[in-house]
Amino acid sequence: MIVVKVGGSEGINYQAVAEDAASLWKEGQKLIIVHGGSSETNNIAEALGHPPQFLTHPGGMTSRLTDRKTLEIFEMVYCGLVNKRLVELLQKEGVNAVGLSGIDGRVFEGRRKDAVKYIENGKTKVHRGDYTGSVEKVNTGLLALLMDAGYLPVLTPPAVSYEGDAINTDGDTAASMVATSFRAEALLLLSNIPGLLASFPDESSLIPEIPASKIDDPRFMAVAQGRMKKKVLGAVEAVRGGVGRVIFGDARVEEPIRKALAGAGTLIR
Amino acid sequence: MIVVKVGGSEGINYQAVAEDAASLWKEGQKLIIVHGGSSETNNIAEALGHPPQFLTHPGGMTSRLTDRKTLEIFEMVYCGLVNKRLVELLQKEGVNAVGLSGIDGRVFEGRRKDAVKYIENGKTKVHRGDYTGSVEKVNTGLLALLMDAGYLPVLTPPAVSYEGDAINTDGDTAASMVATSFRAEALLLLSNIPGLLASFPDESSLIPEIPASKIDDPRFMAVAQGRMKKKVLGAVEAVRGGVGRVIFGDARVEEPIRKALAGAGTLIR
Repeated sequence: MIVVKVGGSEGINYQAVAEDAASLWKEGQKLIIVHGGSSETNNIAEALGHPPQFLTHPGGMTSRLTDRKTLEIFEMVYCGLVNKRLVELLQKEGVNAVGLSGIDGRVFEGRRKDAVKYIENGKTKVHRGDYTGSVEKVNTGLLALLMDAGYLPVLTPPAVSYEGDAINTDGDTAASMVATSFRAEALLLLSNIPGLLASFPDESSLIPEIPASKIDDPRFMAVAQGRMKKKVLGAVEAVRGGVGRVIFGDARVEEPIRKALAGAGTLIR
Repeated sequence: MIVVKVGGSEGINYQAVAEDAASLWKEGQKLIIVHGGSSETNNIAEALGHPPQFLTHPGGMTSRLTDRKTLEIFEMVYCGLVNKRLVELLQKEGVNAVGLSGIDGRVFEGRRKDAVKYIENGKTKVHRGDYTGSVEKVNTGLLALLMDAGYLPVLTPPAVSYEGDAINTDGDTAASMVATSFRAEALLLLSNIPGLLASFPDESSLIPEIPASKIDDPRFMAVAQGRMKKKVLGAVEAVRGGVGRVIFGDARVEEPIRKALAGAGTLIR
């Protein structure tokens, strides 16, 4: 089993992802796809007159402010536009895909964090009423039921809170939770860069491998800032949780899944 | 088993539909929900600068012109906004709902009609490249798999063509196909009017019952014009196809499902 996370930045080649996934699936490779939709959400939110806002947290991370209106736009893009695009492309390749959000069948379940700390003008403030949270449980029963019946699951945030609220959640973490739950051979995190870069955005500075055992080595963590740092720490956690290997790969190219499995990108194991 | 179709016009009380469905589900009543999203699609399409266009066909029926951009907006609203709203409301009521479009698992499969005849200035013309079609098959296997495992299916157009294209399709017909496939005890078609009205929009002119055997009686069909005529003929077809009864009911009220089952609305059997 492999888990393929397709990022939501600009430049993703969805057609290539679907073709490659379909061809692997037909060879008998079990797989689950998880996807994002961030950049298209920003565009639609702008077009609908509700532009995206981001909060910077005390630790330096940023996240999307998710009020009710933003949550609805988020669902339109992630569950409607991007999820159905991938499902349709897979159906055209002859694979019987089933798209689910984390609220469907409680696939991604977690705690809602409705009060979010953020930094503004150097001061720590609290934003309340946010629809955000983190995935703590994956409904592996439903996913196994579908896969055993021949369906390829295509998963997307939002998750569902224990109280039943839809919550915006990080797609990489959700994918990692899926991979850990199934003790997947590989978790592929595909985006619009070739992998982890020592000098972002210089693509020739690609780091081919980071041994999970050396993750505390400052030489490695020095290059991983902000969002990328979170990704690397998440990858290490997945490997420690039983995932065979994590690969940061490129989703702009032809055969993006096969290339990453064959060694392109940044390998963490 | 009952099939509840929730229309997509303005005024639908989604909270009441979810509460009522959840309470019936907890009593052991098997049910499948199918929904629309037409009026919100019109609003979002306007807001995104791609206003809805409708074609009038030679028989007098109208349908939404569905180019690729319209299909994407349609998917955002039906699969993202409305489907996830209903799934979330059901989750908040403690029911493990799973939302699926017709392309997920090929739940609604049919023929794409990419060339659509329409009337303009009295002349018959042909619009090509439309993403539209009609449901011919329902994947009852997937729906039964989910229900047997305790999940309540919440279904929405689009359907999928035999070639794998997403196609805009009539939600009432899709719901009727589901009801017929399962030989449901009842098919409820809930919208923002109390049922079939002799003098639309006068709600006091509600027709309480139309025996399917008398459907060819001109007294009944005289009152059913345009879209309502299509609904009545679809209902009769469902009854002839083995559905116990079809009820046109009101989705604006509290307990909309129980009220329709108890005799409110227009009954066809």
